[in-house]
Amino acid sequence: MEELLVSKVFLFPKLLPARRFLPLSACLPEDIPSRTADHGPEPPVRKPPKGSSQLNRWSRARAIRSGRRLDGPTFRKMTAPSFPSPPPPPSSSSTSSLNQLDENPQSISDAFQDDGVMAAAKPIYMVSDGTGWTAEHSVNAALGQFENCLVDRICPVNTHLFSGVEDMERLMEVIKQAAKEGALLLYTLADPSMAESAEHACNLWGVPSADILRPTTEAIAAHLGVPPSGIPRGAPGRKAPLTEEYFRRIEAIDFTIKQDDGAQPQNLNRAHIILVGVSRTGKTPLSIYLAQKGYKVANVPIVMGVELPKTLFEINQEKVFGLTINPVVLQSIRKARAKSLGFDSEMRSNYSEMDHVRGELEYANRIFMQNPVWPVIEVTGKAIEETAAVVARIYHDRKQKCLMPRISKRY
Amino acid sequence: MEELLVSKVFLFPKLLPARRFLPLSACLPEDIPSRTADHGPEPPVRKPPKGSSQLNRWSRARAIRSGRRLDGPTFRKMTAPSFPSPPPPPSSSSTSSLNQLDENPQSISDAFQDDGVMAAAKPIYMVSDGTGWTAEHSVNAALGQFENCLVDRICPVNTHLFSGVEDMERLMEVIKQAAKEGALLLYTLADPSMAESAEHACNLWGVPSADILRPTTEAIAAHLGVPPSGIPRGAPGRKAPLTEEYFRRIEAIDFTIKQDDGAQPQNLNRAHIILVGVSRTGKTPLSIYLAQKGYKVANVPIVMGVELPKTLFEINQEKVFGLTINPVVLQSIRKARAKSLGFDSEMRSNYSEMDHVRGELEYANRIFMQNPVWPVIEVTGKAIEETAAVVARIYHDRKQKCLMPRISKRY
Repeated sequence: MEELLVSKVFLFPKLLPARRFLPLSACLPEDIPSRTADHGPEPPVRKPPKGSSQLNRWSRARAIRSGRRLDGPTFRKMTAPSFPSPPPPPSSSSTSSLNQLDENPQSISDAFQDDGVMAAAKPIYMVSDGTGWTAEHSVNAALGQFENCLVDRICPVNTHLFSGVEDMERLMEVIKQAAKEGALLLYTLADPSMAESAEHACNLWGVPSADILRPTTEAIAAHLGVPPSGIPRGAPGRKAPLTEEYFRRIEAIDFTIKQDDGAQPQNLNRAHIILVGVSRTGKTPLSIYLAQKGYKVANVPIVMGVELPKTLFEINQEKVFGLTINPVVLQSIRKARAKSLGFDSEMRSNYSEMDHVRGELEYANRIFMQNPVWPVIEVTGKAIEETAAVVARIYHDRKQKCLMPRISKRY
Repeated sequence: MEELLVSKVFLFPKLLPARRFLPLSACLPEDIPSRTADHGPEPPVRKPPKGSSQLNRWSRARAIRSGRRLDGPTFRKMTAPSFPSPPPPPSSSSTSSLNQLDENPQSISDAFQDDGVMAAAKPIYMVSDGTGWTAEHSVNAALGQFENCLVDRICPVNTHLFSGVEDMERLMEVIKQAAKEGALLLYTLADPSMAESAEHACNLWGVPSADILRPTTEAIAAHLGVPPSGIPRGAPGRKAPLTEEYFRRIEAIDFTIKQDDGAQPQNLNRAHIILVGVSRTGKTPLSIYLAQKGYKVANVPIVMGVELPKTLFEINQEKVFGLTINPVVLQSIRKARAKSLGFDSEMRSNYSEMDHVRGELEYANRIFMQNPVWPVIEVTGKAIEETAAVVARIYHDRKQKCLMPRISKRY
């Protein structure tokens, strides 16, 4: 039991199949729920040389990350700045640069390379000594600035997230691999010696790189007159997250799930935000997104011929938001939905036929007209995040009843 | 109906109460679900001079944001670089700098100032021409580096998010206000003329500032050999988000909500990730967090004396993750939970008494011992994001069966 409380992740070692730390099959993402699309048939499996130094290094690095105790004398954490000898100079970022690691014959890039479309994709490495979500979020946002080029894979990009890179050895391996693949390396490393070493190694090995969070952290440090702690998130020494904010978020998520799809209308008065709209206007994902931000959200579906709950009109009307959408877009979303739910053609006609879709939207709009205090948000072509931003903005405007709208928090 | 499809947010204008755009009461956040804690009694309401130029500007800026058509000839969007005359030089960041806007007698800072504890809080302005979530995420992450100082409010910080700042006039108002409050201004402005103007204005008015996303965007532009589009998210001209990725995320969220708390065990085989643990180990918020990232997650509660569903042991065992937690921490979480649910003392004893808590965790650990393929993750003291990062890392390691663990995506 004690061991449970020390380790971050553990597997009962005696019972653990060896494959867990010595995987021998190919590096093929099977059904990764990301932008990684289908790759076609699995490439032939090539076994790496057993017990190679590379393999040992990775298995060990992984063990360090996972919190297992290590016995070998060679397992000391490296201290900065100490680089392994530079790798061969990286070739250009064409397909030829996606070569294999000497001792790691099946990398992800191989799997991508099997798919002709991805051959020229430019790799972006995201490296973090924490969760990696900040790097991912920032890179995602920045890639939004290249959408015109990314669409239709004119300039395809592969991102690779390396999170929990807490030791120098692993950091250097990742940078070495970035050099081999001709990758751009974007990093968030709280430990200043790790950040400095990353910068040096990237310069040394010709890897283009940028410290994602540095300008923000430096500006805040100067503003507060306090240096950054240099401790990555999740490292020992960081405070436990059982703050009031933490519990509020969990409570918001619990509440929001229970209120989904018109459930428990008697609790509508306890919500911060109530979303009202016809099926497939994105009420549920929007509710969940806002719940993650700490708002208790309820959503109430508008269905033609079904009366809305009485409580909806009895609570503070400033909490209620209507959602609407272009009927043509709604129809196509509903068609896809009906297909995925396996509706038969008769049911589908009632749900996704244009007359019904238009009729239901008009019915919803009549309700919105009768309730002019509800802002009505047009969600066509908007990402969930965008609609969430609009809702949050109006919510805070109304709460604050302030002339200069903003969303304020205390730290 | 046509109007619906054009405007981003609209309110039926004829029926709209005037108060919506001319709020007269104080800027007091009521129950904002954020780190903004209770503020005590509401401060006395002071009415701003009706029809003041400040008020008109804000009402107009808000109208622009909300997509309403504007008629007045003075409503042209400003073009850069054209600054209003500099405001009075900002005073130091002490309480005295939290002075009132000339024509806006009740600002949020006032509300904070009513609460003595917050008097010396340093303001950080986050300004975005998009959703503002990237700015918020980055600032949150960077503030994590100052936790030692933020704890116990040794160096309190107030953040203020200004999202959807799409026109120059509004941008300048925000920067002017930042100068008055002695705020640090951190911005993500996709439009290069807006970013440039922000930089110039901040220099002119002595506002410390940083462009959050610039190093990342510039590095990617250099890597791809393509300039950034300069178009903010959500602006016309950006592609619609109805991508495969978008639908996959929505499907993941729908699936995850339906599978919450052991529901529909017959669908466990359709999940990417299955979380198993006793009550209050954070299965639900973790499931939801991962669902937002596109993973279909099911969670199955371990309850002493209740058999786990048979299907859990019949599906691919590499998808299953155990969660465990320190019993003392679990007890305190459960006590808070029992209180918020209004359990009576008898029920509470069974749920949050130490003997029961320990017993249930031991029962869970016996199950984990019998299923050695399941990684068991210790969640004590971890934020949801951190546990999510560990789960995602192991999930991808196992999927990819690769020596160099990473999470890869295509764009």
